[in-house]
Amino acid sequence: MHSFASDNNSGVHPDILEALAAANTGHALAYGDDPWTKAAEASFRRVFGEDCRAFFTFLGTGANVLSLASLTRPYHGVVCAETAHINVDECGAPERNLGCKLFALPHDHGRISPESVRPVLHHLGNQHHNQPRVISITQCTELGTLYTLEEIRALADLAHASGMFLHMDGARICNAAAALGVGLKEMTADCGVDALSFGGTKNGLMYGEAVVLFPRALEAGAGEAMRFLRKQSMQLASKMRYVAAQFTTLLESGMWLTSARNANAMGALLAREAAALPGVEITRPVQANAVFASIPAEAVKAMQKRYFFYVWNPEPADRPEVRWMCSFDTTEADVLGFVEALRETLAAS
Amino acid sequence: MHSFASDNNSGVHPDILEALAAANTGHALAYGDDPWTKAAEASFRRVFGEDCRAFFTFLGTGANVLSLASLTRPYHGVVCAETAHINVDECGAPERNLGCKLFALPHDHGRISPESVRPVLHHLGNQHHNQPRVISITQCTELGTLYTLEEIRALADLAHASGMFLHMDGARICNAAAALGVGLKEMTADCGVDALSFGGTKNGLMYGEAVVLFPRALEAGAGEAMRFLRKQSMQLASKMRYVAAQFTTLLESGMWLTSARNANAMGALLAREAAALPGVEITRPVQANAVFASIPAEAVKAMQKRYFFYVWNPEPADRPEVRWMCSFDTTEADVLGFVEALRETLAAS
Amino acid sequence: MHSFASDNNSGVHPDILEALAAANTGHALAYGDDPWTKAAEASFRRVFGEDCRAFFTFLGTGANVLSLASLTRPYHGVVCAETAHINVDECGAPERNLGCKLFALPHDHGRISPESVRPVLHHLGNQHHNQPRVISITQCTELGTLYTLEEIRALADLAHASGMFLHMDGARICNAAAALGVGLKEMTADCGVDALSFGGTKNGLMYGEAVVLFPRALEAGAGEAMRFLRKQSMQLASKMRYVAAQFTTLLESGMWLTSARNANAMGALLAREAAALPGVEITRPVQANAVFASIPAEAVKAMQKRYFFYVWNPEPADRPEVRWMCSFDTTEADVLGFVEALRETLAAS
Amino acid sequence: MHSFASDNNSGVHPDILEALAAANTGHALAYGDDPWTKAAEASFRRVFGEDCRAFFTFLGTGANVLSLASLTRPYHGVVCAETAHINVDECGAPERNLGCKLFALPHDHGRISPESVRPVLHHLGNQHHNQPRVISITQCTELGTLYTLEEIRALADLAHASGMFLHMDGARICNAAAALGVGLKEMTADCGVDALSFGGTKNGLMYGEAVVLFPRALEAGAGEAMRFLRKQSMQLASKMRYVAAQFTTLLESGMWLTSARNANAMGALLAREAAALPGVEITRPVQANAVFASIPAEAVKAMQKRYFFYVWNPEPADRPEVRWMCSFDTTEADVLGFVEALRETLAAS
Repeated sequence: MHSFASDNNSGVHPDILEALAAANTGHALAYGDDPWTKAAEASFRRVFGEDCRAFFTFLGTGANVLSLASLTRPYHGVVCAETAHINVDECGAPERNLGCKLFALPHDHGRISPESVRPVLHHLGNQHHNQPRVISITQCTELGTLYTLEEIRALADLAHASGMFLHMDGARICNAAAALGVGLKEMTADCGVDALSFGGTKNGLMYGEAVVLFPRALEAGAGEAMRFLRKQSMQLASKMRYVAAQFTTLLESGMWLTSARNANAMGALLAREAAALPGVEITRPVQANAVFASIPAEAVKAMQKRYFFYVWNPEPADRPEVRWMCSFDTTEADVLGFVEALRETLAAS
Repeated sequence: MHSFASDNNSGVHPDILEALAAANTGHALAYGDDPWTKAAEASFRRVFGEDCRAFFTFLGTGANVLSLASLTRPYHGVVCAETAHINVDECGAPERNLGCKLFALPHDHGRISPESVRPVLHHLGNQHHNQPRVISITQCTELGTLYTLEEIRALADLAHASGMFLHMDGARICNAAAALGVGLKEMTADCGVDALSFGGTKNGLMYGEAVVLFPRALEAGAGEAMRFLRKQSMQLASKMRYVAAQFTTLLESGMWLTSARNANAMGALLAREAAALPGVEITRPVQANAVFASIPAEAVKAMQKRYFFYVWNPEPADRPEVRWMCSFDTTEADVLGFVEALRETLAAS
Repeated sequence: MHSFASDNNSGVHPDILEALAAANTGHALAYGDDPWTKAAEASFRRVFGEDCRAFFTFLGTGANVLSLASLTRPYHGVVCAETAHINVDECGAPERNLGCKLFALPHDHGRISPESVRPVLHHLGNQHHNQPRVISITQCTELGTLYTLEEIRALADLAHASGMFLHMDGARICNAAAALGVGLKEMTADCGVDALSFGGTKNGLMYGEAVVLFPRALEAGAGEAMRFLRKQSMQLASKMRYVAAQFTTLLESGMWLTSARNANAMGALLAREAAALPGVEITRPVQANAVFASIPAEAVKAMQKRYFFYVWNPEPADRPEVRWMCSFDTTEADVLGFVEALRETLAAS
Repeated sequence: MHSFASDNNSGVHPDILEALAAANTGHALAYGDDPWTKAAEASFRRVFGEDCRAFFTFLGTGANVLSLASLTRPYHGVVCAETAHINVDECGAPERNLGCKLFALPHDHGRISPESVRPVLHHLGNQHHNQPRVISITQCTELGTLYTLEEIRALADLAHASGMFLHMDGARICNAAAALGVGLKEMTADCGVDALSFGGTKNGLMYGEAVVLFPRALEAGAGEAMRFLRKQSMQLASKMRYVAAQFTTLLESGMWLTSARNANAMGALLAREAAALPGVEITRPVQANAVFASIPAEAVKAMQKRYFFYVWNPEPADRPEVRWMCSFDTTEADVLGFVEALRETLAAS
């Protein structure tokens, strides 16, 4: 059964399985001193600029925490949206691992702005308050929306003007670039992003994410710190070639884009078809592969017997907000089958 | 080229690659709510007892830290050998993640004993000192030696008599059980082990380890805590089925034992053949798949041009101590080739 | 010059200085094994119940962090008002020292309610979220308001029904009890408070606060943990008799009440007199010794040249909100002088 | 009854009590923005050099942890003697608060040397190991011995050559300077010490210690970090004037030296007199105010009924090693009385 719960409910792209098998040739040094890792690091430099550095981790929370840890000390603070994955869905890993406070801000469908960040900057210099050090944004946001390049740049400018850094949680960065029709570097380094969590698992990989550090972060020593932080934070894979081989395939085969485009197209199709059903209200701008909708509570219950998906907001109780997520392997048939099931369910209720 | 640096320089066992491909069938719920994870958990219960609970992690440091974290608060202390992986090779992950102090003890080729532990217990009740809470032993030890069942039991008894717990770092537990000719449960639960880091990566897996909690630990609440600690400590895989499928294969196919036996046999062969060479002194009892030897410094240099392996102790400078590690896929030809190269090297120097 | 910035701008009550001198008689065992500490602990038991335990700390942040640390593990969460001192004014000490997330809630002039807490309880059992463990309230609140006994009891009942605990930050607890006209035990233990930060420094002490643990917390092991946490958290005074002697005087002489009553009376006087001035708007219910008011921005500037006090909220820019705090030694003359200066200032602007 | 347990069993020097009373004049800004704190900071600059910065803390563990925290990140390591207070007597506060590992080294009566430190430097650059960052020495050591200026300089040179820092735990720094007959600056800044924990409590203060940061540490940003770390680490006193006033008196009145000289003289007297008794063996060089001796076990028991002092090492069981500590207020009569009691006890046994 196809799941619309999350893009991490999907399996592994066949090309990735092939890459894993191809990497399985005899012995190789552990912890990244192997040719596959060198190749993957080169791929990241090709895509994001020769002056960046990539570091592989096991999972997205690891990439987020390490990005932030490389730039902070425990008395710092991280500014983000209330809806940010780092604030909501990581069981407090940032607070525990960084020691820092998160300044969680009101948001516009998951997006923060210089206006919303600015009041936090009043804490700068006051010894009683955590010192804002990093602005962290998610692209695509947790509510399926996008920052424009201008919006990213504005936040980077604000951060840099205050001696701070801009971090991007890019668990779904490929979906964002595909949706905006821009390059990965164009949307990150060129907009002033200093540290990036580059997501692979939600775009067809088996496991593995990457931190990409850009020059401003590297000049502040983040790269030096990262080597040790990664080990200490339990994100250094011994058989790293198997993480690296996946990323090389993702970046070099064009799979990053084709997979993301498919997920986005299916999101758009699902939104369009579902919106046409009586009783369905689309609650967030659908800009990539996530669809948020409000439907009758009884329809939620009935549909969840046939498909996996999450209730995002149980309020209002009679019409909760649900999230439907498309992935690299979602097909038109999957979407249309889902919509048909929804139509029947709504009609029956 | 075959590496004798570590058993994590090996690749992935072909059966494991097959298991990964077989698990790649459509969508599945993330974070362990999938049939593969249920099956692997059941395999652990079959092997270690129906009253244990297994939790999958990404890597061995993660399994060690989580085992200990589930049993400690920051004012506790963990008693281990000076040579313990948790003390030496994890970039301080235990101290950082637990907050605890490690009481690192002198050892007998990597083994500690009730006699060496006992003085630490004087700290109990003194508010100025970390409170000893867990004794952690490694089986096989980092120096390739083994605890007998009686020795394990004696440490467990000491721990339990003081309200403490016994943790076993079993990164190479299969090698230990194979070498002792005992069952996995017999060597752990039945000897009083309360928490076990069960190693997979060094025995042919691609990635993934497991924490196994036994009844005393579970009664103390370690299982309840583990669910949240694992997520917060960045060890909760979203696509967990791929970790789980590997473990089911490892435990159910007999591969855990055949792979470990091969590595051990190759260790024994290597030790026997190398010991016969003039200029080679075996420095530790060879009881599993690791061979420690002292050889002339120039021979180290020359051999490292042809084979990967580590210098364990650079002293004495003219005859450092090196470590040669065999793995699941080491062949007699690999060993004999290595020994022949060593013979030539020693003869030439 | 008298300050209205904070009650910790005041000096030390003469009786406290006398108590310090009286304690200075020769040698005594360190770290609390002395008769003064035993006496002060007995005073706390007399006041708060024979089944409580008191632990002395250096400062209020220490008392708050230790109260919470004794009840939490790092994957827990602490529920509080957005305005809570632990959330705003401790430079992230709770997050760093506990590892926990704070769930900071909207508030009614600094007060939270079961209704505002309840949504947080949805996190219980979800491994992706910090587990709510303690509700922390401040009495008097940071905005100078009070919880009624019924409101405290309602929060305690909610906490206990979910296996959680209620903590009270009582940096100004004496002011609260004085204002409500109730006993200290009546407002804490009898209402279900499990852990209390009992404030001394803001009520005439030189330094020193106390954590008081009540039976539910003690049964959960908080007392056992506290001894070690206090040392590890750098709150264990070696010459503890000097902290203890202050508390015995505070509790046994009636000074806790007379001092608090004076501060409250001066707060009421200040509010009444200031409210009568054109251009002054009292912005919060004045229930103890703090007065919050909105006055013209130019008046703020002018007045701050003559008196210390804080701008609490710089918005709106033309009429910021300021805080005026009275203390144990504030006199009617101080208040009337301040009000007269304010009258002149407002008239001139 | 006079105690020989520790110099923190003594009371408060009368001049300090006077200074506290003198500081009790009306209101003052909190958290160090007061004239007393400015004056005390100036005293530290006068004594230690105009380019240093002093920060007041509550206690010695706080001064140690903050000194180290200002110079480290969690993947660093701190090199010290096995006997160091930070390693033995702070309930793991360094590990918990810094996240760092302590590299605890064998020692010569509490002293480490470049030779003992050098092997630890092999960890530099290896991502699996904590990175040595600070060498921490205690002066006087925990065993009552002293580093010469040359020995301090040699450790500083080694540290600086590896990009590391030298910290001195100076809980008894005044005793050390008095014993060596050198100035405080001469023994610290001039020898290359980068961060100093300056002890007050064991030299007649009621409470309060100071961190002094020297130029190399300040250039590395330690001063900037310290302001926030101190608050977050719960060491920022609100009524700081009372800490500061004590230090001004200590440094400006000459009391730092006269008190230390007395304690040292009494230590020398006690050692000389006790050494003359049959059955007493002095076990450590007596260089300041601490005397370590081995006496019959039954004598320990009998003497502890009349005087407080600690058994330092319970082994060998028949002749444990005890510590007798003299303080600023120990008199010749106290010492001679103690020795007489010891003589009687030994004769009786």
